[in-house]
Amino acid sequence: MRLKRTHTCGELTANEVGQSVVLNGWVGSYRDHGGVTFIDLFDRWGLTQIVFDPEISAEAHKVAHTLRNQYIVAITGEVRRRPEGMENSNLATGAIDVYVTDFELLNKSKTPPFDILHTSQVHPETRLKHRYLDLRNPDLQQKLIFRSKAAAMIRSYLYEEEFVEIETPILGRSTPEGARDYLVPSRVNPGKFYALPQSPQLYKQSLMVSGFDRYFQIAKCFRDEDLRADRQPEFTQVDLEMAFVTSGDIMSLLEGLFSKMMKDLKGIDITTPIPQITYKDAMLKYGSDAPDLRYDLEISDITDVLKDTDFGVFKRAIDAGGVVRAINLKGYSSDLTRKDLDAMTPFVKPYRGKGVAWIRMNEAGPQSPIIKFFSEEEAANLYKKMDAEVGDVIIFLADTEKIVCNCLSALRTHFAKRLGLIKEDQFAFTWVVDFPLFEADDDGNPTPVHHPFTSPKAEELYKLDGSTEDILSIDSDAYDLVLNGSEIGGGSIRIHDHEIQNKIFSILGIEDEEAEEKFGFLLDALQYGAPPHGGLALGLDRVMMILLGTDSIRDVIAFPKTQKATDLMTEAPGAVSEEQLEELSIDVFLFDDEDDDDEE
Amino acid sequence: MRLKRTHTCGELTANEVGQSVVLNGWVGSYRDHGGVTFIDLFDRWGLTQIVFDPEISAEAHKVAHTLRNQYIVAITGEVRRRPEGMENSNLATGAIDVYVTDFELLNKSKTPPFDILHTSQVHPETRLKHRYLDLRNPDLQQKLIFRSKAAAMIRSYLYEEEFVEIETPILGRSTPEGARDYLVPSRVNPGKFYALPQSPQLYKQSLMVSGFDRYFQIAKCFRDEDLRADRQPEFTQVDLEMAFVTSGDIMSLLEGLFSKMMKDLKGIDITTPIPQITYKDAMLKYGSDAPDLRYDLEISDITDVLKDTDFGVFKRAIDAGGVVRAINLKGYSSDLTRKDLDAMTPFVKPYRGKGVAWIRMNEAGPQSPIIKFFSEEEAANLYKKMDAEVGDVIIFLADTEKIVCNCLSALRTHFAKRLGLIKEDQFAFTWVVDFPLFEADDDGNPTPVHHPFTSPKAEELYKLDGSTEDILSIDSDAYDLVLNGSEIGGGSIRIHDHEIQNKIFSILGIEDEEAEEKFGFLLDALQYGAPPHGGLALGLDRVMMILLGTDSIRDVIAFPKTQKATDLMTEAPGAVSEEQLEELSIDVFLFDDEDDDDEE
Repeated sequence: MRLKRTHTCGELTANEVGQSVVLNGWVGSYRDHGGVTFIDLFDRWGLTQIVFDPEISAEAHKVAHTLRNQYIVAITGEVRRRPEGMENSNLATGAIDVYVTDFELLNKSKTPPFDILHTSQVHPETRLKHRYLDLRNPDLQQKLIFRSKAAAMIRSYLYEEEFVEIETPILGRSTPEGARDYLVPSRVNPGKFYALPQSPQLYKQSLMVSGFDRYFQIAKCFRDEDLRADRQPEFTQVDLEMAFVTSGDIMSLLEGLFSKMMKDLKGIDITTPIPQITYKDAMLKYGSDAPDLRYDLEISDITDVLKDTDFGVFKRAIDAGGVVRAINLKGYSSDLTRKDLDAMTPFVKPYRGKGVAWIRMNEAGPQSPIIKFFSEEEAANLYKKMDAEVGDVIIFLADTEKIVCNCLSALRTHFAKRLGLIKEDQFAFTWVVDFPLFEADDDGNPTPVHHPFTSPKAEELYKLDGSTEDILSIDSDAYDLVLNGSEIGGGSIRIHDHEIQNKIFSILGIEDEEAEEKFGFLLDALQYGAPPHGGLALGLDRVMMILLGTDSIRDVIAFPKTQKATDLMTEAPGAVSEEQLEELSIDVFLFDDEDDDDEE
Repeated sequence: MRLKRTHTCGELTANEVGQSVVLNGWVGSYRDHGGVTFIDLFDRWGLTQIVFDPEISAEAHKVAHTLRNQYIVAITGEVRRRPEGMENSNLATGAIDVYVTDFELLNKSKTPPFDILHTSQVHPETRLKHRYLDLRNPDLQQKLIFRSKAAAMIRSYLYEEEFVEIETPILGRSTPEGARDYLVPSRVNPGKFYALPQSPQLYKQSLMVSGFDRYFQIAKCFRDEDLRADRQPEFTQVDLEMAFVTSGDIMSLLEGLFSKMMKDLKGIDITTPIPQITYKDAMLKYGSDAPDLRYDLEISDITDVLKDTDFGVFKRAIDAGGVVRAINLKGYSSDLTRKDLDAMTPFVKPYRGKGVAWIRMNEAGPQSPIIKFFSEEEAANLYKKMDAEVGDVIIFLADTEKIVCNCLSALRTHFAKRLGLIKEDQFAFTWVVDFPLFEADDDGNPTPVHHPFTSPKAEELYKLDGSTEDILSIDSDAYDLVLNGSEIGGGSIRIHDHEIQNKIFSILGIEDEEAEEKFGFLLDALQYGAPPHGGLALGLDRVMMILLGTDSIRDVIAFPKTQKATDLMTEAPGAVSEEQLEELSIDVFLFDDEDDDDEE
């Protein structure tokens, strides 16, 4: 490199007019005008218009014609003010041009397989295969720069709060997060396997026992699950844990963090304390434990109103212990067509809903396919309960509580979008608290809602010795942080009492030997001076997606994997040699389809 | 928790006298004096002396007697100035005591398996098994807190230099760092494997092609190697890369980083620019490419002086192309016994040295077992070359250059320690530059000294088309950062020209197809606008060890593994179920010893 830059491509302004500068960058667009060649030269910081004028350097001007898109050049040139009327106020460097006096070609480029500036129509696989080009797109680049700033901001906040950042192992042991582990065969210990961590849960609890008091880590975590659009096999958590605290302390800490993050990164003041809603209320009002509070569309329970109805569908649901719940799409009747309303029934199919009823409150009186099945009193009570007025549309559903919640939650979201109720740059945080400690599995046995280290609320401890019903009614000291309808963090006060931990394991049917084998060191640790402690893990990828307003997790991860968990750029995972497998004492067995059939 | 702390155990001073405070912490030592009970209460921040006085709270005083070492308590109490003469100026809180008025037991502790404050004699395996207790030792805790501060400082320095922190995948593809990969079987892609990264090398080069310009990451890296005392299967690198730079730019950046780190963390001003030494000079003067410059003990080549010697051992070595080199232990004759000198020969055995000659410069004349074999002229020239004076001891060796270097380098270190030449808190940085690009493997073929992406020096490019001898003489644009005789970082300018990269692969005998399969995406990336770039990776664990003055890597890693790569606390790696293996399409094959013998 003969010509080393004095400035980036994003910083020259009228202040530098007259200076001789050196720029390094990529060639973007290229234009000839009256014998003079104009080139957009860009780098991470921006774009500067470069002028090759044969009267200034005939040699450079001649070379300019050999330049192509994405070539890399170094130029020396004079900064000149743009002619009046030619300024570009949308561009930081829009007041000036740089007139080339010396020139060095740093590298050539083949014609890229897609236009780096316009990738929305490019096949996602093509972009992933050439990720090094995709990431040259300024939008995507800025998203990753934003992520870097966010991580820096999070760290600096936690350092100020006297947290210690501690790295925990990647080659670890299975923790019971409920998902499938990625395994790593051990060469030195044949037949044994490491597990990549689903979270640093057990390590961080161990650090609390050590007395670190305030730990955090921006940690890679791993789950070998079938991937959905917003999941990746490896993901990043802001993982933290504190000793001698209550759940309120942890929530305050996070509120401080998000106040600062929203202010510093988005220029937005959020209101703290962040509102809290109990799990029960969230399910009742929004049908979800991660409600989107950017809009109302609250759910009302109208089971009572219709408890004596003769209408068969509703009667059967209620008699079977189900519920009837409704949303009043208040004042939106004229915005919704009959087609919108008819589309609800197919829409709820994936949520196991069998149908959605509706009443349109017209000037001429209520209109509904089913209103005729209700008594006058029932109808009147329903209108009253739902505060129904002319111009409203009431939608409702009868089924098991779970199905009704799922369907109405999905319909809430659907209509919020359909009716344009969600404003961009609106950020609604909420804590969901008082989660149940257990839920019943298919056989009616208690299984943890979070994980088996979550503490029951102190005042509910006595129920641990009660009936299964008592046990299922225990509230935990757990809390989720929800932003715009996504769970972005979850945490709890943990059990620090060895006997309570043992009791939980025994309720879960984890027998002593199994507990000892799986969690032995934690059970030991709890006996050697474990302080009260609790913490939380934030899903950094998810937080970034929401703050950046993107639906694609690939926009916030430099080298994401496909839904088949492959990296199209490096072609990982790949084949390995027989020798490598032999050293690891493992064999691969593969069936072709036919063999597979034989096996069945 | 009824009593929540108002202060930590490390912060109360005479300023708080008279205040009522709440402390939470662990019970350390316990003493009774005249009916009053004294307890050291400690946490991460320090230690406060707590007094249980029956006249203040009879109830609390009674409970005090049930407390044991490592119990966790919360106390409310009044801060009182210590009686005159009882202050402890070595303790931040040594001016005060806290007299207990209220008390809450937060958790009990079994008797720890070892004394947390005195672990040097405890079996390392016991400490690792109970790592949560070992880490309660304040010294070890402070080391990890230091590490957290160092990482914070490094990040803040790099953010200020406009670096972007980008996470690269852990589930990646094998990179050619030369060590054995840890493999992760893919469930979704049966028979294929991810590799845990030995470094983010290929990803970071790809990010340079993307135009991120300045990337860094504090990255976990993995090597499945047989472990030495200072190695771990997973280790942490400060990994960085820059575009449009020369090696000098990268060195300056690192010099700025270490100036700040040494100042902020150790209060030490280092001199910059850090001195540079060429690889050739380092090998000649110190016998090592990671010389310890805290002391002199320079090596001199005396092959020329003895080139015509009749002394058989030396003659044969020289005739075979070997060298004779010597160190003058200047003025240390009276510090070294005959035993010291005789011990040199067994000492160099592990380095394949066959013997070490010596001359002691006595008042009465030179004393040496071998001086008699040299001519008078040879002896005189040797004294002159070595600047030999009365009181010196000259030690020397004849063998192949490699063996002589290894032996004299080891002897340098040995005598520096033996003679007390190394001062604690002395930090000698040096750059080692001008490494050869290739070295000859056992068959005489070129193999990379660093990795195959290292750029030759620009002025040596022409040699790539020359003979094997030419090729082996190429200098690379690589540099290592050495601190106190340890390589703490290594980097280079990378190849950004697709054709040169191909040429290097071809020299290395990596055929087109193999290059395409292994590094295809990098070769592609280099063709789509790759800027000149280079970088460096720092071994963070090593840097922490040196800055903290510890020989044990376990002192700077929270949950280290043993030399058998096991985690004694979690018992990772562990057994996994047949179902897990089946899902991954792998089998384990294990031989017992007998079978193993049969196989041989």
